[in-house]
Amino acid sequence: MTFDPCPVTPVAELVFGKWTTQVLWTLAHHGRTRFTELQRLVPAITPKVLAQRLRQMERDGLVGRTYHAEMPPRVEYEMTPLARTLLPVFHTLVDWSDTHLGEVERARERYDAAL
Amino acid sequence: MTFDPCPVTPVAELVFGKWTTQVLWTLAHHGRTRFTELQRLVPAITPKVLAQRLRQMERDGLVGRTYHAEMPPRVEYEMTPLARTLLPVFHTLVDWSDTHLGEVERARERYDAAL
Repeated sequence: MTFDPCPVTPVAELVFGKWTTQVLWTLAHHGRTRFTELQRLVPAITPKVLAQRLRQMERDGLVGRTYHAEMPPRVEYEMTPLARTLLPVFHTLVDWSDTHLGEVERARERYDAAL
Repeated sequence: MTFDPCPVTPVAELVFGKWTTQVLWTLAHHGRTRFTELQRLVPAITPKVLAQRLRQMERDGLVGRTYHAEMPPRVEYEMTPLARTLLPVFHTLVDWSDTHLGEVERARERYDAAL
């Protein structure tokens, strides 16, 4: 009998894919944000990848997109109520990180020293 | 001022990297497990990738490795106490998933229908 591998994986892939967490965290702290501002706040992400990620997160129901038909047109992104339900999960992870990430560093030092 | 992108990302990369979550979840439910048994329980992962992931998780202090000098030699893997501290985080994610993953599916249907 193959054990059902893991019920965590689907949500981990949804939320903790590359850049998704950073974009959500930035929107959580900046509220409604324009594309160019998001680029400035997450400088390591390229415009092309940011656009792809935002489209995917919009499709997943995690990001809302508002188009302002002005000259030039203006587009803003924000967390949806569904995305906001993830904030307690994020804080749980930050707490774990504050408490335990140091232990990971020490484990790595021990492992490397024993090589 | 570039905003500190995200304190969640380091732990997300540590714990929710490809296969890491599945291996931890399987060890959590099966206790000390041999390599070949892990392969059987997580059939989609190749032996080479499983070996790499286990080495990385051992280095990160999340997996303990026990070598039995028998003929043939036997190697077993298990969660470390540090990894066990992640189980409440996993259950938080499973709860979120049970409650909200359906909303993600419906958002995707709406998005695709509007294309």
